[in-house]
Amino acid sequence: MILRLVKSVTDEQIRFLEDRIVSLGLRADVSRGIERTLIGLVGDTSPIDPGLFTELEWVEEVIRVSRPYKRVSREQRPEGLTIRVGSITFGGPEVVIMAGPCSVEDRPSLLSLARRIQKAGAHALRGGAYKPRKSPYSFQGLGREGLLFLAEASRETGLPIISEATGLHHHRTPAGALEEATPVDAVIEMADILQVGMRNMKSYGLLEEIARRTGPLKMPVLLKRGESATLEEFLLAAEYLALHGNPLTLLCVRGIRTFENQQYQRYTSDIAAIPILKRESHLPVIFDPSHATGDHSLISPLSLAAVAAGADGLLIETHESPRQAISDGRQSITPDELTDLIVEVRRLSGVRTGRDQIPAL
Amino acid sequence: MILRLVKSVTDEQIRFLEDRIVSLGLRADVSRGIERTLIGLVGDTSPIDPGLFTELEWVEEVIRVSRPYKRVSREQRPEGLTIRVGSITFGGPEVVIMAGPCSVEDRPSLLSLARRIQKAGAHALRGGAYKPRKSPYSFQGLGREGLLFLAEASRETGLPIISEATGLHHHRTPAGALEEATPVDAVIEMADILQVGMRNMKSYGLLEEIARRTGPLKMPVLLKRGESATLEEFLLAAEYLALHGNPLTLLCVRGIRTFENQQYQRYTSDIAAIPILKRESHLPVIFDPSHATGDHSLISPLSLAAVAAGADGLLIETHESPRQAISDGRQSITPDELTDLIVEVRRLSGVRTGRDQIPAL
Amino acid sequence: MILRLVKSVTDEQIRFLEDRIVSLGLRADVSRGIERTLIGLVGDTSPIDPGLFTELEWVEEVIRVSRPYKRVSREQRPEGLTIRVGSITFGGPEVVIMAGPCSVEDRPSLLSLARRIQKAGAHALRGGAYKPRKSPYSFQGLGREGLLFLAEASRETGLPIISEATGLHHHRTPAGALEEATPVDAVIEMADILQVGMRNMKSYGLLEEIARRTGPLKMPVLLKRGESATLEEFLLAAEYLALHGNPLTLLCVRGIRTFENQQYQRYTSDIAAIPILKRESHLPVIFDPSHATGDHSLISPLSLAAVAAGADGLLIETHESPRQAISDGRQSITPDELTDLIVEVRRLSGVRTGRDQIPAL
Amino acid sequence: MILRLVKSVTDEQIRFLEDRIVSLGLRADVSRGIERTLIGLVGDTSPIDPGLFTELEWVEEVIRVSRPYKRVSREQRPEGLTIRVGSITFGGPEVVIMAGPCSVEDRPSLLSLARRIQKAGAHALRGGAYKPRKSPYSFQGLGREGLLFLAEASRETGLPIISEATGLHHHRTPAGALEEATPVDAVIEMADILQVGMRNMKSYGLLEEIARRTGPLKMPVLLKRGESATLEEFLLAAEYLALHGNPLTLLCVRGIRTFENQQYQRYTSDIAAIPILKRESHLPVIFDPSHATGDHSLISPLSLAAVAAGADGLLIETHESPRQAISDGRQSITPDELTDLIVEVRRLSGVRTGRDQIPAL
Repeated sequence: MILRLVKSVTDEQIRFLEDRIVSLGLRADVSRGIERTLIGLVGDTSPIDPGLFTELEWVEEVIRVSRPYKRVSREQRPEGLTIRVGSITFGGPEVVIMAGPCSVEDRPSLLSLARRIQKAGAHALRGGAYKPRKSPYSFQGLGREGLLFLAEASRETGLPIISEATGLHHHRTPAGALEEATPVDAVIEMADILQVGMRNMKSYGLLEEIARRTGPLKMPVLLKRGESATLEEFLLAAEYLALHGNPLTLLCVRGIRTFENQQYQRYTSDIAAIPILKRESHLPVIFDPSHATGDHSLISPLSLAAVAAGADGLLIETHESPRQAISDGRQSITPDELTDLIVEVRRLSGVRTGRDQIPAL
Repeated sequence: MILRLVKSVTDEQIRFLEDRIVSLGLRADVSRGIERTLIGLVGDTSPIDPGLFTELEWVEEVIRVSRPYKRVSREQRPEGLTIRVGSITFGGPEVVIMAGPCSVEDRPSLLSLARRIQKAGAHALRGGAYKPRKSPYSFQGLGREGLLFLAEASRETGLPIISEATGLHHHRTPAGALEEATPVDAVIEMADILQVGMRNMKSYGLLEEIARRTGPLKMPVLLKRGESATLEEFLLAAEYLALHGNPLTLLCVRGIRTFENQQYQRYTSDIAAIPILKRESHLPVIFDPSHATGDHSLISPLSLAAVAAGADGLLIETHESPRQAISDGRQSITPDELTDLIVEVRRLSGVRTGRDQIPAL
Repeated sequence: MILRLVKSVTDEQIRFLEDRIVSLGLRADVSRGIERTLIGLVGDTSPIDPGLFTELEWVEEVIRVSRPYKRVSREQRPEGLTIRVGSITFGGPEVVIMAGPCSVEDRPSLLSLARRIQKAGAHALRGGAYKPRKSPYSFQGLGREGLLFLAEASRETGLPIISEATGLHHHRTPAGALEEATPVDAVIEMADILQVGMRNMKSYGLLEEIARRTGPLKMPVLLKRGESATLEEFLLAAEYLALHGNPLTLLCVRGIRTFENQQYQRYTSDIAAIPILKRESHLPVIFDPSHATGDHSLISPLSLAAVAAGADGLLIETHESPRQAISDGRQSITPDELTDLIVEVRRLSGVRTGRDQIPAL
Repeated sequence: MILRLVKSVTDEQIRFLEDRIVSLGLRADVSRGIERTLIGLVGDTSPIDPGLFTELEWVEEVIRVSRPYKRVSREQRPEGLTIRVGSITFGGPEVVIMAGPCSVEDRPSLLSLARRIQKAGAHALRGGAYKPRKSPYSFQGLGREGLLFLAEASRETGLPIISEATGLHHHRTPAGALEEATPVDAVIEMADILQVGMRNMKSYGLLEEIARRTGPLKMPVLLKRGESATLEEFLLAAEYLALHGNPLTLLCVRGIRTFENQQYQRYTSDIAAIPILKRESHLPVIFDPSHATGDHSLISPLSLAAVAAGADGLLIETHESPRQAISDGRQSITPDELTDLIVEVRRLSGVRTGRDQIPAL
């Protein structure tokens, strides 16, 4: 960290800074140029809040040299973190496929779909029991009952479950009752991986609470990138989880919100984020083509692109019968399409031997 | 709402749609053109989830004619809503000024600042006890103790208090203890207006819970627009509050995240959102120039711009002694600058007689 | 300008840098810290291309202290530049209103409109003879004939003309003929102010050519900000004009392209850009509410916001009879609405005595 | 195209519309619902300017059903267009690699680099003789002399040349002379493919002029997507070229400008644009990883991602000796790295047999 001071800085103000720097356990390296005075901070500055300096009128700019995230950084674990859930391994040679419906609708269709997904070769079952919806009039999910169906599907198929925990509130079921257990409680109780949705990536208090509860259970958290989160903010959200007790985070890249949000794609798929996150952090990186594109015809090319760019896994919305069923979204593929995609992913990841070769810092 | 169907649509599929529409208490107005069949939905479609139709393969597009928000719409209350808190009125002829520190630091400086803010002519005291920070290593706020200081400042000055409730988790104090009361509980207990920050605008479960708790108390909620929320999403978040029990929402416009986020401004101040929100909704509209610009030199011109565009109030970060104090941010102004600004705002709102004339729909 | 060097930098590489810096007429101020070596460049670095250093592997970052634009900077002319065109003055106490149709359609309607605009109190007549259109099938403007109509309207009303010069190509008239004179030639011949549209702000060769031709004529150029240009890029485009012979630039702020481009506004009006540009540059700043919002009902509130924020002028699309006429756009106001708006702008700018007080750097 | 009319529409206004529609050679299909009247336009509406209807007060919305681009659409040539330049074929089974320096610096280094690029297996040589630079103080390119060096390198290696034509102005050489031939003239004279840079994608007059001159020569144009152009705008720019005489366009995807423009990537690589463009248009699609990311360590993963997503070619900045040379940018790779990348691309495109399978409309 380097501080660039204003031209008119006084000796007293420089001493004030030196004292503050020393009080933080660092050393101050003052360099007075003709035009500007600079102070370098020597030591481990990653946990230092730059706000301690930007707030001072006589500090013109704080230039960060080292990364503000530390526990999740690649340096902390150059070989990369592998996370095991049952028999599957994130961060290893195989691309992990998680598939399932956007939201759990009813028991029979979920069980049937789960069996087909397993047959297709997927590794885990995704499904939403709590659905964050932009309109209060939209279906908000079955709640705890949806998780019960998922748990049953898991017992039948052996597929571990991933489901989103939307918060610490009390969910109102479609029948109108308020559930006793919060979404966080219920997902911890019944799923194998807890998903934090993109709308909550910056709900830092919620992240802390989730880390405190899931950490002791060694339950991995799949953290989705916020739709307008910078990569630094994304990594710092993972740092919240790590600092407060849960280092087992899966970083999930999806689309970001840009001007390109109308006709052809709902979000912009930030594929470059995949190799950047692999370089900056030791955490496994997952890609979600369904929410990124909002268009089932783009799921296959974008999944392959993500794998080519180094993704460790894919999270794909799948629905059994888009042609007749009510509940199929435009962004879902069928189990047959999933089967084909998994074949292509395997072929691709076999060729891309360099997939786990991380771009050098 | 108009449904545009695919060319190959069958009679059976059209009947399916008609049935669904009727089951929603509406009438279906089928119009078969040569190239396309269209179905108009007749009746009140505002609470209808478009997903009920977009999910069907044979519905090519759902074109919304009426707004998806209803309770917060201008039509529901063409004269506009006024919200009273103590002696101040939001949505009336006077521009309401809420000022105070970014975060509450200590008792004496807060009390001193509160007195000066009151003298400057401000109407309410803002201050953060719970601070959402992108780094887990940054100061996260004094917590409940900060609210106690705010309550004391309120008793001394008579200024009502507005403070952010960051969630339903347990806050860790600077000393490391976990607080018993959640931020939502504590803010409801001690503040006059509960603020929902921009990071939580899409935490819909949290909004529901807040509405259920604050509604019976007639406690207004100041809802900040998410940094990448569309105006429709913003209004639907207010609709969540209204539907779940609290119609007393203040819409707070701040900056949005755009490519212009580097040198000169942190966010882009979306001033046009002010007249659009006034036209679309009956809720009072507040502008926050401090977080929008991140630069104290822009607070005055942007405050005046917001008032000229029709804002009902301003939320301004103020700090007593930016020159020597540790805790002043670059985006705060001094009480003296606040005094000047309030004079200018009054002069301007006196001239702009048309301030509450809403652009016609 | 400060260079931050890589950890592994060699003495030879530092000497290479020192030589390069000296060869640029500057002095190198080397400061070796424990962690990093920094080199400060002493002297006037504004015309220095940072690429000369970023391209070197051992330069980690180039930190700019002074602004990359010099001729158009506020420092060069702290009192601000006033530009005179006939009897009107840009950059003086009065807010200059330029009004007229989006595109010139025919002679009689233009003459009639021009008279009404003059009566409404506007200062100049705008009108497009060459129209950049995103579809090749859209009306591309009357071409030189449109300029002839504008010139006639100018003679009748005394209003100076501003019109866009779209390039150095040959325009195809609605009748299909290729015009001999390029748009740049024709606009220089017949208008008083040459407008560079937002699509050409980064056509640097075109800017150079325009500066070379308009400079000797002392013809002002109104330069529109590109829809995704940063403010630094915008100011550097004005620097192109100044460096190549024309310092008389009017900076025109309009909307920028953000995710908010759908329902309610076409672009995001970057009102904060107005005080920032006034602070950074001595050039007059104009605001175009018509193209920024794309919605006639927002023109009045946004115009007032821009004036409150310090704008020196407004560029407003006006059309005589939106109700019956074919050629009225949704973003035009009527001459009557223009009359009312000019009254409000005058009242506002009378009150806002501090309008020309520039925020301090 | 469907017109949605205002509630208060009169019979006379509907007749006015019917007349206008008929005068365009189409049929009007009026459907009066209870709430809204809709008019469907029957016939080929792709060349129709929606502005003809949006400008009317009683037309609330124009809903486009068919695409506004026609000549470049996939429907026009479902099998896809192949473009041949010498021995290379764009749009065929092989991924075409174009490599070379950002800007041509001097003859010997260009000749040496060209030989190594050819050996690496690249198909064409790229190099900038005219450089659009955001600062007027930056190096603007060697001009025509640079093209002479490129032509010589082409004769030696047999590689065809692609180079950017920045406009119809007169280029000033580093020595300060104004060149007689414009960049467009010079590139047409000496290169094999004319590149239109992202800053000129919306300079429609320039596109027309380029199409008129290159069309008769059957010289392909590589058109870069503007940094904030929607895909529809991008395809319409290609439509300009096709309509005015040159259907041989290569669509070049690079990054778009989003909030993610700071630390880790300069632009956001819009990989999803590749399959979307392949689906919408029959033109070959190229990806430029160098300008998209601005970071040489991301070029390999993003190139592979683009190929996996269906790209027909890559445009890659290459420089011989980044370690010592002055003129290497951070976004260039070495010829050795290029060699490795080409091997990987071949392996990948061998596996991805479905590369030219276009997502169905």
